[in-house]
Amino acid sequence: MRLATRDNGTPDGELVVVSADGLRYLSAGSVALNLLAAMENWPATATALPPHCNRLAAGEGEPLNPAALRAPLPRSWQWLDGSAFNQHGELMQVAFHSPPIETDRPLMYQGMSDRFLSATDPVPVPDESLGIDFEGEFGVIVDAVPMGTSAAEAEKHIRLIVQINDWSLRTLAPVEMKTGFGWVQAKPACSVAPFAVTPDELGDDWREGRVCCDLLVEWNGERFGLVRGDQMAFSFPELVAHAARTRDLVAGTIIGSGTVSNREYATRGSACISERRAIEMIAHGAPQTPFMSFGDRVRMTGRRSDGVEPFGTIDQQVVKA
Amino acid sequence: MRLATRDNGTPDGELVVVSADGLRYLSAGSVALNLLAAMENWPATATALPPHCNRLAAGEGEPLNPAALRAPLPRSWQWLDGSAFNQHGELMQVAFHSPPIETDRPLMYQGMSDRFLSATDPVPVPDESLGIDFEGEFGVIVDAVPMGTSAAEAEKHIRLIVQINDWSLRTLAPVEMKTGFGWVQAKPACSVAPFAVTPDELGDDWREGRVCCDLLVEWNGERFGLVRGDQMAFSFPELVAHAARTRDLVAGTIIGSGTVSNREYATRGSACISERRAIEMIAHGAPQTPFMSFGDRVRMTGRRSDGVEPFGTIDQQVVKA
Repeated sequence: MRLATRDNGTPDGELVVVSADGLRYLSAGSVALNLLAAMENWPATATALPPHCNRLAAGEGEPLNPAALRAPLPRSWQWLDGSAFNQHGELMQVAFHSPPIETDRPLMYQGMSDRFLSATDPVPVPDESLGIDFEGEFGVIVDAVPMGTSAAEAEKHIRLIVQINDWSLRTLAPVEMKTGFGWVQAKPACSVAPFAVTPDELGDDWREGRVCCDLLVEWNGERFGLVRGDQMAFSFPELVAHAARTRDLVAGTIIGSGTVSNREYATRGSACISERRAIEMIAHGAPQTPFMSFGDRVRMTGRRSDGVEPFGTIDQQVVKA
Repeated sequence: MRLATRDNGTPDGELVVVSADGLRYLSAGSVALNLLAAMENWPATATALPPHCNRLAAGEGEPLNPAALRAPLPRSWQWLDGSAFNQHGELMQVAFHSPPIETDRPLMYQGMSDRFLSATDPVPVPDESLGIDFEGEFGVIVDAVPMGTSAAEAEKHIRLIVQINDWSLRTLAPVEMKTGFGWVQAKPACSVAPFAVTPDELGDDWREGRVCCDLLVEWNGERFGLVRGDQMAFSFPELVAHAARTRDLVAGTIIGSGTVSNREYATRGSACISERRAIEMIAHGAPQTPFMSFGDRVRMTGRRSDGVEPFGTIDQQVVKA
């Protein structure tokens, strides 16, 4: 099942079910006011929505205007982003001249969740000198997860999968990281691809609690990376269990993988500029690729191994705030 | 003006205006559905509520049952906690054997905001071995703050002041801090004293953007600290401006001072156990005070210099989750 959120003038938008080809939709307003409300009552939602899918499969539905779509959750109560791709961490230590992070636990920070940009929203940044960077990643949306839930149990709470661009300001990131307090200024609002899908939509590409899809990243029309989401050191259920160790997770919590990164970075490229710069530093002694400028565009598309693009596409332009 | 939130079975509760003696209330339901909605439309709220205050002053209102009160904001879209008392930071470096945090910027992390415990809610923690600690602090609630707002402008967005217990799990805190990602497991839900007050309620004790009130902290009935909120290295307007550097702050954002700490700690005591332990380490080579046990209570009351207690009292018990 593919879900999306149409702009209807309300803060949380209108929940819609989208056809398999992504071209038509039916409102799910009779089932749940919006996706956040749907997450709060997922069993009822999951029972009530399949007839919409059947009707869409039979050719019903309105034409879907991508420009009318917002982030699946335009806001949520909690966004916890991991950093589960070890290859990225190793390269970033070089980029930031930082000592290795010595931990056998998942890395995770809490980020802003009061606003998620849509896949096509302009991305406002106050200053080009802040080191404007994208981070292509996958994420999951859970329903309510009780404190102390194990990873095995956590998998059952993963209701939807999303594709995220975690915007990062690299000039500020190491300054904030050094304090130990995590990031506030370095992490403005994330963007989310238009479709949130149930795990079954990924078929075999949802396995071992990982989104084993490709992620094609293009910067100003040129391929920047074609990475794959399978090399997470911790699975999404493990990340969910980590987050739920000392708190109940509120329904609608989004948990991110961290920027996708692969051991085969030499051939696959990267999902963020900072990582490419780190690779350049290793190869040439200095970074060669600049960060983004105002007017630059980034495009990101997740792909199943059979070529299907379940999440739709993020295609955004950076603008001066 | 003193505002509070009564439990009415809804997620956000019912906004009420409270009499100066804290004993009576009038529903503000005709003005705003709840405090979060009030923050989203503060000018209208601020205009509509004074007649309620006049009626309360004239003796109207229902008796206020403290047990029916929730946190002023039982949930909000954003909670950003500072650490603006340098004395605390200096002592904690000793406690955690950590190098000094070298920064001339405010320290700040994003914490969980999907749930704030009431002043009397039991505090669920999974395990006594996690180093259960309180942190007494003050905070402000802002309406919408545009990205790039200066500290001078930020002061105008500070609409309410609150008193907070930022629960902390000290066994986990340094582990998470070392990663640079900030705290997730070490910072479960905070508690908030019953009354959120407009700055004028503090009189001269709201000055230079600081809550210059005393904060009395009692642990299991014994005085633990009687600290004062005036020694912040950065004012609340500066903390708000820091938070708004690269993001719009959503209405209802709560910004915390960090645990109150004074240079006169030898006579005034502390607002968290960890700081007392650090002081003991300096004096005796080892900490002597244990962290909290299940069943322990903590009580916190802010006091104006004239003895008035504008925020009411936090009085909570730690329980096994």
